[in-house]
Amino acid sequence: MEYKVIAFDVMGSDNGLIPAVDAAIKLLGEQKDLKIIFVGDGAALKKELSSRKHNPDQVEIYNTTEVIEMTDGIMDIRRKKDSSMVRALELVKDEKAHGVTTGGATAPFIAGCHFILKKIDGIERPGFMPVIPTVVKGKITLLLDVGANLECDPEDLVNFAVMATAYSKAVNGVEDPKVALLNIGEEKSKGMELHQKAYKLLEDHEEINFFGNIESRYLASGIVDIVVTDGYTGNIALKAAEGMGKSLLTEIKTALTKNIFRKLAALRLRKAFKEVAAKFDYKNHAGAILLGTKSIAFKSHGSSDKVAFYATLKMTYNAIKNDVVNKLKKALAE
Amino acid sequence: MEYKVIAFDVMGSDNGLIPAVDAAIKLLGEQKDLKIIFVGDGAALKKELSSRKHNPDQVEIYNTTEVIEMTDGIMDIRRKKDSSMVRALELVKDEKAHGVTTGGATAPFIAGCHFILKKIDGIERPGFMPVIPTVVKGKITLLLDVGANLECDPEDLVNFAVMATAYSKAVNGVEDPKVALLNIGEEKSKGMELHQKAYKLLEDHEEINFFGNIESRYLASGIVDIVVTDGYTGNIALKAAEGMGKSLLTEIKTALTKNIFRKLAALRLRKAFKEVAAKFDYKNHAGAILLGTKSIAFKSHGSSDKVAFYATLKMTYNAIKNDVVNKLKKALAE
Repeated sequence: MEYKVIAFDVMGSDNGLIPAVDAAIKLLGEQKDLKIIFVGDGAALKKELSSRKHNPDQVEIYNTTEVIEMTDGIMDIRRKKDSSMVRALELVKDEKAHGVTTGGATAPFIAGCHFILKKIDGIERPGFMPVIPTVVKGKITLLLDVGANLECDPEDLVNFAVMATAYSKAVNGVEDPKVALLNIGEEKSKGMELHQKAYKLLEDHEEINFFGNIESRYLASGIVDIVVTDGYTGNIALKAAEGMGKSLLTEIKTALTKNIFRKLAALRLRKAFKEVAAKFDYKNHAGAILLGTKSIAFKSHGSSDKVAFYATLKMTYNAIKNDVVNKLKKALAE
Repeated sequence: MEYKVIAFDVMGSDNGLIPAVDAAIKLLGEQKDLKIIFVGDGAALKKELSSRKHNPDQVEIYNTTEVIEMTDGIMDIRRKKDSSMVRALELVKDEKAHGVTTGGATAPFIAGCHFILKKIDGIERPGFMPVIPTVVKGKITLLLDVGANLECDPEDLVNFAVMATAYSKAVNGVEDPKVALLNIGEEKSKGMELHQKAYKLLEDHEEINFFGNIESRYLASGIVDIVVTDGYTGNIALKAAEGMGKSLLTEIKTALTKNIFRKLAALRLRKAFKEVAAKFDYKNHAGAILLGTKSIAFKSHGSSDKVAFYATLKMTYNAIKNDVVNKLKKALAE
């Protein structure tokens, strides 16, 4: 069988390698054409894997001796040559794996993608692209960049739009994805020079189905398929939305457990709340692809648990399966 | 009786003057030392007021013949001399009123505040400051700027912090308000030059109780009393939070009305949901003061209904009652 292979850096995230292994085992059980190369502390990995049921053909261990820590900087990618992050990236570069997943430090990972995997021709700034759940059933919105580059120029935003359009078609099966520019108002003249210039370029671009400006209040409305912005703004918008979602759920929980009568009534609605929480729980959307890298590279939250790692690994698998990178390259060349 | 007087521009908002009049009548009934000068279409105002119970001593009508429309620009403030917005601002400048409230167009209102009311000495860029509800009982967070100035320099952010500190003490009764800088991470080195410089200035400022950087995910967490940022970022963060709150409430409503069993159980929790919705409904926080103006100037959402106008008028009244502007001036002079 020809496997889709993920190089999985299991070190360097906040919760150790156990949730990472648990998530991987779950996905391996579901996807029989998936193989995962676990990159990290070989002895610990051997121990954890041996106690979990799995098909040995789908699993490989790659032992490494160093770890990129959360506090490490960009240059540690060059210094820690035998770190799990560097080795996982190299496995992809050497075509031993089709994609990489990590829960490790963000800045070194971006640097590693640039140095080791390289950028797609014509892309100056790859962008992190997470998935936003929306109120429309079955519809998600892709947002990029959310922090790979604090500052972008108008051309970067156009490249984000082209790449995300190709991704949306390939992975999400959207026929003609609608792209919007994140801004403080709908009118063409809104925002700063970046937005006004990007608006014009997006509007004139033949391969982009441009919707116009969108305010951050409509991120989860499902109006568009893709929202492009600079990494600083995207990071602020994403975290503001995530944070308010979490605060509101906390507030509702408090209100529903205020007294025994409410608790009893709420019990009968447990399933309804679970449905909503599952959809808007950012653990289920913890992964972001670094779009514009020459291979498939996914970053999961540093605080990922099993649920979050599972979601990110599944996104990585889907990207590999749908041959995302070649489709991006083709779209950019057009 | 010495009245606190609000000049209320009732024209130019999306929903006409009826919700504005309704809101004002409600507040006038509650606050016996409040007087409102209704500025706008005199005949229409006379008709609406005559059909509503009120104390005539608390009410005045100022007839105007022009309206600043939502589509009007900054220069229309100079052109439409008999507009309700201009006249309301002039009433404050001429000391006939202590503060102004409008639901009219934002850009002309900011321009009108600059031209007619003027800025406090030492303030280059006044900032719009709305109130964010938090999960901590009885605690709100002030956020500024949310759009009066797209770009700010580090000194503007320090001025925002000083002014909001004085406001928080005067109006919210917070003893030693904690101020945070909105950023994409907690570390001092995060963000762009603006943030790094502002961090240093805020940290060194003797009158500011500086908490450090805060991510937008914690806007509604109640960790701090004040969050400062540039107007572009504040606008993006505020609307992202508002939008996710609304999307999530929509999603919950859909889940709870999916079938008759859920509907019946949800009915018993109506009061709990109302409590949460009231707290997080942005109608109750639709007003923002333009902090740094020489007089008290409040802007309510253009789409304000009675609830929103009431909330904004009440904020205006509280600001007047607590002599906010003089306290700001004093804090800035220290």
